[in-house]
Parts: sequence; C-alpha cells; structure tokens
Amino acid sequence: MHPVNPPARLLMGPGPIDADPRVLRALATPLVGQYDPWMTETMNQTQELYRRVFGTRNEATVLVDGTSRAGIEAALVSLLAPGDSVLVPVFGRFGHLLAEIAGRAGATVHTIETEWGQVFPTSVIEDAIVRVRPKLLAVVQGDTSTTMNQPLDELGAICERHGVLFYTDVTASVGGNPLEVDAWGIDAVSAGLQKCLGGPSGSAPLSLSPRAVAVLDTRRSVEAGIREPGDDVSEHPIQSNYLDLAMIIDYWGPRRLNHHTEAASMLYAANECARILLEEGRDAVVERHALAGRAMLEGVRGLGLTVFGDVSHKMHNVVAVEIPDEVHGDAVRSAMLEDHGIEIGTSFGPLHGRVWRIGTMGYNARKDTVVTTLSALEQSLRRGGKSVPQGGGVDAALDVYAGLSAELDAQLDGAVPA
Amino acid sequence: MHPVNPPARLLMGPGPIDADPRVLRALATPLVGQYDPWMTETMNQTQELYRRVFGTRNEATVLVDGTSRAGIEAALVSLLAPGDSVLVPVFGRFGHLLAEIAGRAGATVHTIETEWGQVFPTSVIEDAIVRVRPKLLAVVQGDTSTTMNQPLDELGAICERHGVLFYTDVTASVGGNPLEVDAWGIDAVSAGLQKCLGGPSGSAPLSLSPRAVAVLDTRRSVEAGIREPGDDVSEHPIQSNYLDLAMIIDYWGPRRLNHHTEAASMLYAANECARILLEEGRDAVVERHALAGRAMLEGVRGLGLTVFGDVSHKMHNVVAVEIPDEVHGDAVRSAMLEDHGIEIGTSFGPLHGRVWRIGTMGYNARKDTVVTTLSALEQSLRRGGKSVPQGGGVDAALDVYAGLSAELDAQLDGAVPA
Repeated sequence: MHPVNPPARLLMGPGPIDADPRVLRALATPLVGQYDPWMTETMNQTQELYRRVFGTRNEATVLVDGTSRAGIEAALVSLLAPGDSVLVPVFGRFGHLLAEIAGRAGATVHTIETEWGQVFPTSVIEDAIVRVRPKLLAVVQGDTSTTMNQPLDELGAICERHGVLFYTDVTASVGGNPLEVDAWGIDAVSAGLQKCLGGPSGSAPLSLSPRAVAVLDTRRSVEAGIREPGDDVSEHPIQSNYLDLAMIIDYWGPRRLNHHTEAASMLYAANECARILLEEGRDAVVERHALAGRAMLEGVRGLGLTVFGDVSHKMHNVVAVEIPDEVHGDAVRSAMLEDHGIEIGTSFGPLHGRVWRIGTMGYNARKDTVVTTLSALEQSLRRGGKSVPQGGGVDAALDVYAGLSAELDAQLDGAVPA
Repeated sequence: MHPVNPPARLLMGPGPIDADPRVLRALATPLVGQYDPWMTETMNQTQELYRRVFGTRNEATVLVDGTSRAGIEAALVSLLAPGDSVLVPVFGRFGHLLAEIAGRAGATVHTIETEWGQVFPTSVIEDAIVRVRPKLLAVVQGDTSTTMNQPLDELGAICERHGVLFYTDVTASVGGNPLEVDAWGIDAVSAGLQKCLGGPSGSAPLSLSPRAVAVLDTRRSVEAGIREPGDDVSEHPIQSNYLDLAMIIDYWGPRRLNHHTEAASMLYAANECARILLEEGRDAVVERHALAGRAMLEGVRGLGLTVFGDVSHKMHNVVAVEIPDEVHGDAVRSAMLEDHGIEIGTSFGPLHGRVWRIGTMGYNARKDTVVTTLSALEQSLRRGGKSVPQGGGVDAALDVYAGLSAELDAQLDGAVPA
C-alpha cells in the first residue's frame, strides 16, 4: 500500500474546504508533552485567540478534541441533564441534529420547524420560548444544508428575559458572517475548523459564559483514579466522560486535571486558523466572504441558474443552486470533479438531488477560486446538455469584484462611496 | 502572538512521544472532500491497515475521531445499554477510567481490584465472571499508570464459555507488546496513536467482532435529517450520537451515511502510523520495543535505582522507577527537561511523587534515545544530590544491545543462538 497522495482538488463545496497552507504547515509541528510549560502556555494562548474569534471574554473557552459534532454534543450533554427541556428551532438538517443529540442526552425536546430555505422571525422563537419555557434554546446559526443564516442578535436578550440558556452551533458560519458572543448574550457556542476558519475537521472550539459554567458546576465530578480528598463527586454526573465540559474546563484551567491527552497537532492547527483570521481582522474576513459570496451568487445567476431559498438570509459563504431540469445533477458534479478537479456539493433530505451547494469559505473565499469555479461550471453545464451564456458566470462575478473594488478605492481615497 | 514554535524535546515519558517524522509529514497532506472517491478509498485502505495492526479480519474496523478516551467511550457506550452489567478488573488508573465511563453510560459496574504494580491471574478474572455474570468484560491491556501488561490471551475463551463480550483498551500497549484480536477472542478493542504507534493523540483506531456488531444492531438508529423510509429508528438509541459506533460503522461502510466530517488530517496520520508499523513488521516492532525496554530497565538498575512493580508483567515500552529518597522527584524531572530537553513522567494516585515513568515507545524505542536518557538521568541525579555510578546506566543499556546484537548476528550467520 502506498502513502497517502491525494489528487489535486479545489474544494468549493459546503466544507471541508482546502486548508490554508499555513495550517497544513502548523499540523506538521513536532509534538511536546501535554504538561510541558510551553504546551500549557500554548493552550492558554489558543484560548485567548478563540475568545477574540468569538467576540467574548469567557474564561471557559477551550477546544473539544473531536469534530464540530463533538463540540455540539459536549455543549448539549453538559448543559442538559436528563429530563431538562430544550427548544430547538429547526430550519435544516443540522437543527434536526441538535434535536437528536439533545434527545440522546435524555432531554425533553421541543422543536419548531420552518420550511427549508427560510429562517425564523425572532418573534416566532420568542413565542415558542414563552409557550415551552425551556431550560435551553439550542439553535444553529448557519445551516449548510439550506445555506440559511438565522439572525441571533436579539435572541440573547429574549433568553435572558425568560431565564433561558442560549446555545448556538456556529460551525458553518463563524468567520464568514458576523458573530458577537458577548454582545448577543450567547451562553454557549461551538464551532469547527473546516469551514471559514480554513482548517481540517477534528477540533471544536467552544466557549461558555459564566452562567453556563454555573450550570455545569452543579454536576461537576472528578473521576476516580485522579480524585483527591475534597474533590467534587456527583451522584448524577454528566452522562459522557469524554464530552464532560466541566472536566474539559478543569483540564484547560489552572488545575490542569488530567482528562484526555490533548490532540496537539489539531491544537496547532486550531491555533494557526485563529491567528490567520485575527491577522486579517474579523471584520475584514467577514467582508471578504461577503464579497466572494456575492460574486458567486451573481455568477450562478449569470449562468441562468436559480438560487435556492431566502437570499436575504443566506450565509455569505455558501450558495444553494437549483439543479436545472436539462442536466443530471450528479453527472455535472462528477464532471466538475473529474475534468476540472473542483468539488461542489449536493444536499440532504428534501434538497437531495434538487440543489448543488457551492462554498466560498476560508482560504477559498477568493476571486480566482470563484472565477475558476464558475468557468468550470459553465463548461460542465454545457457538456451536460444545458445551454448557458458564454462567460455569463465569470463576467457577473468579475463585475461584483470590480464594483466593490471601485467603491473601496474611493473609500481609501477619502471620497464618499456611492 | 507568534506562531507555534515548540522547544526541542525528546519525549521519553509515558506518552505522547515524538511523532515519527513521516507522520508529521503525512499530517501536512492537503485535504480532500469526505466523499471524494480518493478519500473513501483511503478510508477503506486505512481500515485494512488497522485490521493488520490488530490481527483481525473484523469488517467493523474504523477510526473514532477523538483521542483514545473517545475510543474507550465509544466502545462502552455503544455496547452497554443502561442497566447492563459490566465487570472491570482494575489494576491502575485506566481501569478506574473504564469503570467511570461505563457508569456514566448507565451500566451496573462491578470492579475487582489488585494492588498497583500487579496484574490479575486469569483464574481471578474467571471467578469474578462466574460470580457477576456480566454482559461485558472491560479490561485495559497495558495500564501506563503502573506499567503493567495484563495477560489477555486466555480471556477470550473464558468469555466465550460464559457468554460474555470482551472489550480491551490497548492504547498504551499496541505495537509494543503482542496483541492478537482474533486469536485471543477479543470482541472490541480501541487504541490511540500517541504511544507505540508513533503518532499524535487525536484518532482512536477501533475494531468490533461480528458478535459485537450484532449487539449494536439491536439499537441502530438513523438520525433525523438524513433518515429515509425503511431506515432503523430505535426507541432506545445509544445515548451518545457522536460516539455511536453503529452510526460510525455506517459512515465507514458501503452506505457512507453522513455522520461527522472525517478528520482527514488525523486519518492521514493514522494511515501513516499503521504503514510504518507494518513495513517494519508487527513482530519486529514488538521485538524492538522489548529490546529498548530491557535496555532501559537494566540501565536504571545500573544507576542503582529500583524498578516498581511486577517486572515479569511489565509492558515492554514503559518502566516505573522508584524515586530515591535523596532527591526531589519533580526537581529531577525539571532538570531533565530544562537542562537536557528530555521529558520523563510522574504518575497518578498512589504512585504520584513515588515513581518516575520512562517510556521507550514507537519512534523513540531506539538505542540512541535510551542511552541519551540514561546519560541525562545520571547527571540529573548527581546534581540533584544522589551519588550514582558513573556510566552505570549507559553501560548496562549498551550491554543489553550488544548481547542481543551478538545473538542476532549468530542467527543471521545460521549459528544456533545461545
């Protein structure tokens, strides 16, 4: 068997996307012991980097050693004891996932649903909170299955008014869309690296407010084998050990209580992802995603395709495109992959076979990747049997870039933008 | 904040150890989408590599995307429904961990304990099985907290005779000590990369026998959001979603049912770890660990130190050394780290502050690392206030290597070994 030697790919699906080359280099950094002073200092630094990424001062900001799904489950299984009530607004596949995971944690799960391609008006969520009176509101910010971006900025105040904890999964949205954990009153947030952060799947940055930590404290339990006199032992500990955030926080905190062995390579990757984002600047990164997303959106429209869903609530970093009747969706995706080396995605459930999902995320939220993808899509559609305007996608995308460039130039010159 | 730039370290503790440079290079491999034909083929190949590492033909051989502790919890939470009975023989810190995790999974946990530094006679485990009649026997093979290696080769037949499932955690032992999953009748086994496999923490190779898979099948449940008509839905699904092995097997299997997003970088690392081991040969790798372990053992004795525990049941790849009264244990460890760049470990619970643990694992199971460590230990003990024979450690270790080299030379020459 030969060593891993992947084909050249440009990953323009809903994630994972190509890792930033700086992140790949960081992954190859030599290991250091988990209690080495340099390692604990690097863990502290990584916590501070993710506080800045999330827009929070939460002390309890850590990495969960698993994929973004591990971060979701860590949050839900730690905050929800069996019998606790949770409200999950479902607007796509990942809302169903939150409900599924909360149910397995033994919670009483209440869902509200809206049509795929839409988000919830804030008032609908508030009405459900008043009706259900849950302990926790759990909502996805950006659901890649539909590309929608649920507005969260008013939900924290509503939750606080009703004494409800507020958790959100920002895996698909963080970096590409605004997020202000403290200003929006979010108590618990979890993410992954493989979308707009430009890293590999396998590490889940997560942050908890002091209010959320207080909930954990009621079930804190130091495990046998490392327990010392006076340590907490709960009759009803969190039902997972690996994903017990109280233990994970003790491991990252000043006591450094042994839990798992930190996945150092993924820590290095997470650290580098955050540094890349913060060097460019949070607002600038969101703006770059907004621009690439607008160019891709206008580009697919320029090819005569229809965009799925409520475009005014779309995430910047992914667009769902209705598959035209004239072509076979999987055949076009295969042609994109095999003839052009470009990956785009299909979707789940009601959208399976109905839309392609095209991402412009992280390292791949660039003009050249947008243009290359639209050019390849034009060729693949044409060869798949649909007539498309020559250059219709590329021109529309470049017009977006040119327009915004002119506006930016004017701003830099001190002129009033149009 | 600066990029991660660790100090030079030689990691001779109980793990993690220095990753093989080939594994570091593999980590830096570009990403590919999770359903790319190349990626699914690489996943299949990795499954086959770990079948060979484990000595099994189990179809259900996968990676769990987390540290070795995630693998343990995946096995226990998937095989044990609430109320099921489990027997855990505890001979160190990680036996307590198995009991803790099984308890959080809702199992009724029965433990038997032996003194730290000892293993169980097989008959004692069989007697407990007869008394308890558990659904599952869960036992650590090698417990790094004590360095002991529990003999497993007869337990499978005993479990089969009594209708008990047999799980073992081989994180600390695999690669450095014999393991024959099929020949020994093991139903479930989980590991990690960061010991004798020479990789980073963060991926947990795991294998299940058909008998274990049949147990999972009774609780198989396809999650909402990707469920199709006819799919299994259980009233009592496995209580974790992330660590649900039925779902993880469906993700790795022919249906490729979406679950987590595979941690591709860690998959690459796991793949390379297995290839390195299999290229050298399973038996040859065990023999290399046996030789390095014997050299380190004789080396610390040559410095006048006392080895902890039942040496005849010690893992090849780690030795526990009693801290002599004349020195301060942490001061010597600090001198090793700060003056020589070499990490050795302390231990947990009853052994905390009583022993150092010195590992010779994976890429670091070499003559030069053994000699360098013993040389540094001699200097650190001397400067810490204990008089030690000059060269006593280095000479004893080199004698072991010289003796075995002579024997191997004789074998290669066709002569009868002594």
